[in-house]
Amino acid sequence: MRPGRSPKNPTRGFIVPIGGAENRVQNPVILRRFVKLCGGPSAHIAVIPTASSLDNTGEVYGSVFGDLGAGQISILPFKSRGDCESQQYLEVLDHADGVFMTGGDQVRLAEMLSGTSAAQKLCSRNLHGMHIAGTSAGASAMSSAMIAGGNSGATPRAGMVDLAAGLGLVSRFVIDQHFSQRDRLGRLLTAVASIPFGAGIGLDEDTAAFIGPDDTLEVVGTGSVTVIEGSSLHNSAADSTRRGEPVGLTGVRLHILTDGNLYDLASHTLLRSGPTAKSHGTACLNATALT
Amino acid sequence: MRPGRSPKNPTRGFIVPIGGAENRVQNPVILRRFVKLCGGPSAHIAVIPTASSLDNTGEVYGSVFGDLGAGQISILPFKSRGDCESQQYLEVLDHADGVFMTGGDQVRLAEMLSGTSAAQKLCSRNLHGMHIAGTSAGASAMSSAMIAGGNSGATPRAGMVDLAAGLGLVSRFVIDQHFSQRDRLGRLLTAVASIPFGAGIGLDEDTAAFIGPDDTLEVVGTGSVTVIEGSSLHNSAADSTRRGEPVGLTGVRLHILTDGNLYDLASHTLLRSGPTAKSHGTACLNATALT
Repeated sequence: MRPGRSPKNPTRGFIVPIGGAENRVQNPVILRRFVKLCGGPSAHIAVIPTASSLDNTGEVYGSVFGDLGAGQISILPFKSRGDCESQQYLEVLDHADGVFMTGGDQVRLAEMLSGTSAAQKLCSRNLHGMHIAGTSAGASAMSSAMIAGGNSGATPRAGMVDLAAGLGLVSRFVIDQHFSQRDRLGRLLTAVASIPFGAGIGLDEDTAAFIGPDDTLEVVGTGSVTVIEGSSLHNSAADSTRRGEPVGLTGVRLHILTDGNLYDLASHTLLRSGPTAKSHGTACLNATALT
Repeated sequence: MRPGRSPKNPTRGFIVPIGGAENRVQNPVILRRFVKLCGGPSAHIAVIPTASSLDNTGEVYGSVFGDLGAGQISILPFKSRGDCESQQYLEVLDHADGVFMTGGDQVRLAEMLSGTSAAQKLCSRNLHGMHIAGTSAGASAMSSAMIAGGNSGATPRAGMVDLAAGLGLVSRFVIDQHFSQRDRLGRLLTAVASIPFGAGIGLDEDTAAFIGPDDTLEVVGTGSVTVIEGSSLHNSAADSTRRGEPVGLTGVRLHILTDGNLYDLASHTLLRSGPTAKSHGTACLNATALT
């Protein structure tokens, strides 16, 4: 269980999926943390606004990162696959400390970038220390098996999720966003049932997972991050259930993580509770008995 | 993990919580199964309509059970705690093969019955073979720690569930109903976090759990039954999270069961897949790899 394509790699950069609707004005804890991670005053951050259909999305984020003290900001307005081969843009990726992918439509983002020199550079530079954040569509597109769309609801149902090929920055888990706000547990469970060697990561709005080179995940933000261990599945009826019917799944292991929690994606254990959390042993919990 | 108050008891009757809105006309598979369980043509079924605020709820179910071939039907219209001491009604409970508790308001049902001779008789007769079904409010009220109300949403949040004392027919799990229809995973997770020795059972509409004296649970109906293993919890921040904030929980084990699944509540394993399900070993699942 790890982001990236190599075993634990101490030189890899962070991967930072964000659940969308992150605070950009009053208390931008997630974006501030990303700027700091990239070097603060010395940080060169490149913004990829390709998922967005609005013309000024790149500039909006550029301005926010500037206000947060980033030393240099570049916008990479990839509008065609040809743009993704532009030497000028590729040189920016050669030198950036961090890349930020905006929200919009993950299918648009993946179709524009996948397989291009820009996408290859994102992967190779991340393996050598460049950090990559993405919000909403920009978070979904990080996965190899990307959630392209689906229905809402807490119960997994056959056919409720559409998968497509993403950018492949992380190959062993599937990312979903606007998670509790759009009631997406069912579609993430359905996705995990089809790739049960990995994990599903569901990010609430204004909530980020800072995934480090040591395979730890730290939660930053006001919502929660839901982790579903695909490898915990005992039984799945995903392949034999009719479209729209509930999918039987047993043994699903689920973790709900909140701000400040530090979680080990390799061992699936909580390494540190957050400021509002308190750790109990199971034995302690079991000691509380109803009569 | 078992319903009732004694260890595995082969003479105990079934406990049958139903998630509400069960089919009563076209294809009443759940109610038909209950009538058969109680003896079919020789079955004497007593209906407790106390949860309902409507005057004819008892008669409506009486008529349905009659159409389904039950030999004898009694209505027990407990409208006061005094009614719950009535010798005439208690004698019905002495001889009934099954009891059915209707939907309505579980708080009303529990407040009327709890601690009365009628409630004691329900428990003692169930231990000696009388079957008890309940739909919606009638399902919730079976628990010792009863969900009285709460907010919807898939993420557990501090203060999102109100617990109250139920009838205590099952002491080691908490039952919720209209489960996926009313988006109640969050409140059931929150409830389980506060009684982590047991399990949470979330029933969709038109879906029942037939829980036998051997601690197995069989699913009947068109929706799914979600089982949350409380004892699987590694960490819970329930006691230190501010009202309305997400509750961090790690290690939650979750099972989604569908029609025909037979599940062992003691070992938390699937004993039999249903007609639409197919069983896989974990190793088999792991063999499918994304590149």
